[in-house]
Formats: sequence, structure tokens, C-alpha cells
Amino acid sequence: MREANVNIAGYDYGQPSVARSPLSIEELRELEQTVGWSDADAETLRRHVDIFRRHAEEMVDAWRAVIAAQPHLIKWFFGPDGSRDAEYAAKVKPRFVRWVVDVATRTHDRAWLDYQEEIGLRHTPAKKNVTDHRHTPDLVPLRYILAFVPVVTIGSRPFFARYLDGEELHQLEDAWSKAVQLHVTLWARPYAREAMW
Amino acid sequence: MREANVNIAGYDYGQPSVARSPLSIEELRELEQTVGWSDADAETLRRHVDIFRRHAEEMVDAWRAVIAAQPHLIKWFFGPDGSRDAEYAAKVKPRFVRWVVDVATRTHDRAWLDYQEEIGLRHTPAKKNVTDHRHTPDLVPLRYILAFVPVVTIGSRPFFARYLDGEELHQLEDAWSKAVQLHVTLWARPYAREAMW
Repeated sequence: MREANVNIAGYDYGQPSVARSPLSIEELRELEQTVGWSDADAETLRRHVDIFRRHAEEMVDAWRAVIAAQPHLIKWFFGPDGSRDAEYAAKVKPRFVRWVVDVATRTHDRAWLDYQEEIGLRHTPAKKNVTDHRHTPDLVPLRYILAFVPVVTIGSRPFFARYLDGEELHQLEDAWSKAVQLHVTLWARPYAREAMW
Repeated sequence: MREANVNIAGYDYGQPSVARSPLSIEELRELEQTVGWSDADAETLRRHVDIFRRHAEEMVDAWRAVIAAQPHLIKWFFGPDGSRDAEYAAKVKPRFVRWVVDVATRTHDRAWLDYQEEIGLRHTPAKKNVTDHRHTPDLVPLRYILAFVPVVTIGSRPFFARYLDGEELHQLEDAWSKAVQLHVTLWARPYAREAMW
């Protein structure tokens, strides 16, 4: 169940350039348990990986339409001229699309954990813009990352419901929701004060 | 649609003792828009307020059973003797139960916004234990607060499903999920580094 890593600029999954999460694997397992994540959830996402592969770009387009409609969200994509930096948006997009498929397929190991730290950092002054050599604001405030979760969870139901209903739809929605919340929880790490995350 | 404030120790909603959120009401509206919160969601929760009134305590008991089963979660309830502080747990519980009903009924105004800041602070060294004069650890780390959301959202479906199905069940699940995520986003504020939340 491997995807090719080629042709996505800045997609450094598993590379030595990626940040290292301060979390141990044991602490990750505790966090998975907290969110209710189980092997059954991982299997559910993998069982439906074709939905994600087929629709990941549409899903990202749908979420970006939500962002574009809200001045307080789209402004983090603005360049110094005060308008949307189309090159920044274009460079980020394939990684966002790939993230969708990764959520459904990646094993939660050290490489995966470290890459969530990297993604978090890329929304903060430590690494935003650095990967893509652009000049948008150097932060997406944490509150917008957290508050965007329902857009990505509830907003995915129409894609899932093209193929599933009843209990199987619930299973996929639940596995997806747990996975997304787990990712966002890890992305919040660089935003938190020392020893408070 | 008012609930009595009496008889819940430390439930200071609307009182001058409550912290003040640094967020403006305009910024709150932007955050609501981000989470996808609408008047229709508020109406959905209010339409089903009897579910919350009737089952709030059962819901909290169910979530607490999840906490009790995980050493990395229950330890934040421990007293200096290294065992669960039953008095702390007993004092916090009625406020937690009341929070469930408040989510379904409270208008998102300045008093509500400030109380979310207060709840956030009560999970951090600034105010944890202070309200109840207990000696549990002075923090619940942010990652456990964030990761617990699916327990509270997915875990509520069985309660909702006793009364609802189909589209009406979806509407209530979605409104509840958005509301919970909005609350937790506000609670994250005191954990974040200056200007990063």
C-alpha cells in the first residue's frame, strides 16, 4: 500500500531533513488510545483507500473553497502585496492532497510521528514559507487549525456517502474523525508553551 | 431556556470572578464561521435539549469510564498520595454535567466566551485545583484535551440514536461536533505561546 514520493516538492516524509517529534512511541500509543484509535480504525481507512485516492484532490478543493470564502482564513495565504499568493497555494496543495491519502495508508511509526511534527512546524514561524521560499504570513494561528477540523470531518461525509451507507459509513466517518483529530493534536505541539502540550 | 445556577460549587458562569477571554466578539464570530457553526446548529441543539438534560450525567459517566481505564488520563485526577482524589472528581463532575447542557443552550455571548477561557485555565497551573482547593497535578496537558474530542463526539451517538435516526441524527451529531470543537479550541488558548493561538 505504498504511494510514490516523487514529484511532490517539499514532501520530505521519512527524510533526514524532517523535524523530530519529542513524543516517544509509547506516548504516541497513549495518545492513540485517548482518541479511541484502534487497529480496526486503521483497517477501515485502508479498506476504503480507493475513496481517498480517487477523491483526495476534490476534498482538498472543497476545503480550500471554505478557506477562500473567509477573509480571516485566506489571509494566511496572502503575499506581501496583500493578495493570495497563487504560487504558495499551488506548492502547498499537492502535499495537502497527499496528506489525505497518507492518513488512510501510513503506519503510525517514528517516521509518521516525526512528519506530523514537521507539518505542525510548517504552520508556525519556525518553518512556514521556508519549504516553498514564499513570503506569506509566518503563522496560521492554532485556533484556526483546530476549528477547521469539522470542515474536514463532516465535510468528508458526502464523499464517503457516494459509496457507503449505514454502519459501514459510520465506521469510515469515525475512523477518519479520530485520525484527523490525532493529526491535528500532534500539529498543535509547536504552538504550546513548554511542558503544557 | 434557562437552567438554575444554584448548587454547583465553583460554577461561576457570568460572575465577575471569571477570567476574561482576549478574543473579541468579532473574532469569535470568525472562529464560529471557521468551525462551520450556524444559527441552524444552535437551533438543532436547542430542539433536542431534552436529550442533553436527560442524559448529561450518563454521558459524563461514560466519558469518565474512558478516562478511568487509561493511566495516562486518570493520573491528572490523582492526589499527592498517588491515588484518585475522589473529592476532586466529585467536585468537578456537576460542572462537567452542566457543561453538556450549557453547550446545548447557552448563547455565544461575552459571558459564554469568558467562561470558556475560565474552563481552559482550570486545566492549567493558573487555576487547576484552585476552585476546589485540591492537590491534584496542576495541569491536564493540551494533547489529552484535544485527543479526547472524539470520545465526546462519537461517544454521544448512542445517546442521540435512542431518539433520532437518518438526517435528524446527522444534524444533531454535526451540531454537537462543531460545538465541542469550538469549545475545545477556546480552551486551548491559555496553552498556546503568546500570539500563536
